[in-house]
Amino acid sequence: MNSLMTRWENASAGSSALRFLDRLLRGIGQVMFQDNPLSGLLFFVAIGWGSWAHDAAQVAIGGLAALVAGTLTAQWLKVDEAGLNAGLYGFNAYLTGLALPTFMDPSLLLWFYVVFGGAVSVVIMLAMVNVFRTWGVAVLTAPFVLMTWLLLLATNAFSGLHGGTLPPVGVIEAIDPALANPLAPGDFLQGLLTSISQVFLKGDGVAALLLLAGLAVSSRPAAAFALLGAVVGLITAHALGAESQLISAGLLGFNPVLTAIALGAVFYRPGLRVLAYALLATVLSVIVQGAMITLMTPFGIPALTGAFVLVTWLFLLPGLKFETRG
Amino acid sequence: MNSLMTRWENASAGSSALRFLDRLLRGIGQVMFQDNPLSGLLFFVAIGWGSWAHDAAQVAIGGLAALVAGTLTAQWLKVDEAGLNAGLYGFNAYLTGLALPTFMDPSLLLWFYVVFGGAVSVVIMLAMVNVFRTWGVAVLTAPFVLMTWLLLLATNAFSGLHGGTLPPVGVIEAIDPALANPLAPGDFLQGLLTSISQVFLKGDGVAALLLLAGLAVSSRPAAAFALLGAVVGLITAHALGAESQLISAGLLGFNPVLTAIALGAVFYRPGLRVLAYALLATVLSVIVQGAMITLMTPFGIPALTGAFVLVTWLFLLPGLKFETRG
Amino acid sequence: MNSLMTRWENASAGSSALRFLDRLLRGIGQVMFQDNPLSGLLFFVAIGWGSWAHDAAQVAIGGLAALVAGTLTAQWLKVDEAGLNAGLYGFNAYLTGLALPTFMDPSLLLWFYVVFGGAVSVVIMLAMVNVFRTWGVAVLTAPFVLMTWLLLLATNAFSGLHGGTLPPVGVIEAIDPALANPLAPGDFLQGLLTSISQVFLKGDGVAALLLLAGLAVSSRPAAAFALLGAVVGLITAHALGAESQLISAGLLGFNPVLTAIALGAVFYRPGLRVLAYALLATVLSVIVQGAMITLMTPFGIPALTGAFVLVTWLFLLPGLKFETRG
Repeated sequence: MNSLMTRWENASAGSSALRFLDRLLRGIGQVMFQDNPLSGLLFFVAIGWGSWAHDAAQVAIGGLAALVAGTLTAQWLKVDEAGLNAGLYGFNAYLTGLALPTFMDPSLLLWFYVVFGGAVSVVIMLAMVNVFRTWGVAVLTAPFVLMTWLLLLATNAFSGLHGGTLPPVGVIEAIDPALANPLAPGDFLQGLLTSISQVFLKGDGVAALLLLAGLAVSSRPAAAFALLGAVVGLITAHALGAESQLISAGLLGFNPVLTAIALGAVFYRPGLRVLAYALLATVLSVIVQGAMITLMTPFGIPALTGAFVLVTWLFLLPGLKFETRG
Repeated sequence: MNSLMTRWENASAGSSALRFLDRLLRGIGQVMFQDNPLSGLLFFVAIGWGSWAHDAAQVAIGGLAALVAGTLTAQWLKVDEAGLNAGLYGFNAYLTGLALPTFMDPSLLLWFYVVFGGAVSVVIMLAMVNVFRTWGVAVLTAPFVLMTWLLLLATNAFSGLHGGTLPPVGVIEAIDPALANPLAPGDFLQGLLTSISQVFLKGDGVAALLLLAGLAVSSRPAAAFALLGAVVGLITAHALGAESQLISAGLLGFNPVLTAIALGAVFYRPGLRVLAYALLATVLSVIVQGAMITLMTPFGIPALTGAFVLVTWLFLLPGLKFETRG
Repeated sequence: MNSLMTRWENASAGSSALRFLDRLLRGIGQVMFQDNPLSGLLFFVAIGWGSWAHDAAQVAIGGLAALVAGTLTAQWLKVDEAGLNAGLYGFNAYLTGLALPTFMDPSLLLWFYVVFGGAVSVVIMLAMVNVFRTWGVAVLTAPFVLMTWLLLLATNAFSGLHGGTLPPVGVIEAIDPALANPLAPGDFLQGLLTSISQVFLKGDGVAALLLLAGLAVSSRPAAAFALLGAVVGLITAHALGAESQLISAGLLGFNPVLTAIALGAVFYRPGLRVLAYALLATVLSVIVQGAMITLMTPFGIPALTGAFVLVTWLFLLPGLKFETRG
């Protein structure tokens, strides 16, 4: 594997076309923090499969179009080469491109939106990176969340844009306890997988397995924490009495998955104390996802990865050192 | 008094149990900016009385449980010793623990929420302290406000959590002028006292007197500005035509009380110019409380001390120097 | 013209009354970034005309009262002399004073609100300037937006304050495509002019021409970018299918006008790459205005220049250098 990667690196260094492809793939890999083109390729295949299997090819195509638009914008703005080569200007564009066709009806203006959103997500990324550099904290998927919220909210004001599959605008109500039935073991397994694939806005078991493979080829701890985050997310949501259907669809699980990977395997050195700290954050991310779903109800937009971003920021900003193993 | 305090300090330095107790008491004292265990003790008695007298012992117990959880979390995270000994990692936890049983029905999960909220409030405190250090400004009760808003919003998504005494979700409407009758002198006095006790989420006259005593033993200017804040808050709210019942319940007064103490007696050196500046902020805090009540209406959550936090930040961030007495 | 300006500067330096008048005029000029008393005078006449022609003299008077209150507050707080002389502590107060009588019914308390809002806007300006100095970015009209949102939201809580001309509180709905008819050429021209005058909350063609003249005497690029912003805003809004009536009233155009001036003629050096960058932001500001109108719907308050502020921050915060002409 390593020698294959070395040959790919050398080939990329010598060809601007391959370098561009490498940037795209790493951009996809960075959705789950992997600066690795093979992870990106496996994630891309996972999302391609998930889109095709659910008759939604426009989602995979949207992701790719926005990713290309974002990467070209970053190159045009002459951003830092290292970040560009690590795919840091691609993942927010890619997610924006997946989200827009997921929540909007197809139209010519949707494709303008996809390309425009991919390009602007890079400007937002640069803005946020500059702000958060002050405290040495990563911006995570916040540019994607902000860009997509703004674009989706605006669909109400423009008759050429159709948010046909957006959540309905509603009045906040406590959920009916009857909807929180015990989960059957099959639902539990399904929720485990969809929690992982919903990171890319897809509820699909095969996609989840490909995503796990993509993580594992780059970082086994990341794959382990993804699974741990999914399990903790499921148990927490179920114990608190969440709607079973949301759990098995993975809609309460993708934020814990990302939070667990970020805090457990990316930004802190592993150890018992870090594990406890990451678990605390993972449980919180389920609760915050519940809060965000509530907050979004009057506006009819999805919460996206807002809970992951907020919780991970709150747990990174203290700048704690966990040198000693606990 | 001073020799008693010295003996307590010495005893605390020599016993880890007393040190822990000292941290808890100062944590309670810091709700109104007093790094003083006797203030904390009087505040604790005040809240204990207020809870017991209103058949709501779970509120006082919740505060204590969250305070212990928060202080233990801070110790586990090895935060700075000076802040820990000054009670800086306790007051947000304590308030969170008072708020949750105030707005939620008793259940086993409520107690999980109380302990969890107390613990996480410390992480949020650390995160915000790190951000606001950039501008040399205190984070005030913002961690409590953010933590409690998130926890209360999430009750809608989980059937095991019951926000039974939360404000109802509603559509924003201008208040009926008939509800803003002139206040009788008795109502005025009641509003004066409840404005002070509502800092700890309780409307109770005896508690208010104990709180004033707790302030006075530590800082007479703080006690004076608490009273001034309550009077200015009452007059402003009444002059603008607020609902009489909100005024006499102290619900438009606790934010001005905290704002007046913070700007008049804690963060700036006293003087005529500072007095004028603090009064401007105190009036604003009433208006912002009105704005926040409006903002919260579609979400069915209480505004808490959000107005105090926002206004005091706006008046501290300019970093003005008021050396010369005006 | 230049010798006239020199004589005015000399006269202002020698008379505190003229200096104060100069500060007021530059404060008005800074609404569109012009540190120029003649621009301020022309803007003032434009708004005076617009108010008088629409039977709303209280709007022009409110602006002046808040401007005086804000400038006196800044002097009392001993802010930096250079900023004071450049009118930097006036424009947010002026806009606040225009907005309050635009959205509220006349009453004695309205005039308290105007003076109070003008004074407090200066504190908010100082607070935000201190925060945004960290990243070298201007605060733009954010103090006006925050101050006015808070003051208008609070009208619901106080029966003495009447937000009689506020947008109605509503449930978010996608606009009816029938309202997005093709614009007639006359509507297009009208929208072009009102887009410029709505920067000062007025829909009036004569006022728009006076505003353009006020820009041109100080900076021809600013006048050109104002027109460009209006045209791009109109075309974008129309292409996306916005409500025709909003377009011709200029309500989707004032944010693009300000965004185009700020990015094209004030904060970056002109050039082809900057032009492309400013156009991207200008288009985004139309979409964000649509998003903000949606966001404000449940709260019944106007979006004001929030879209301009957010978009311009996002495009300034990257701190890009565009030295080379593209």
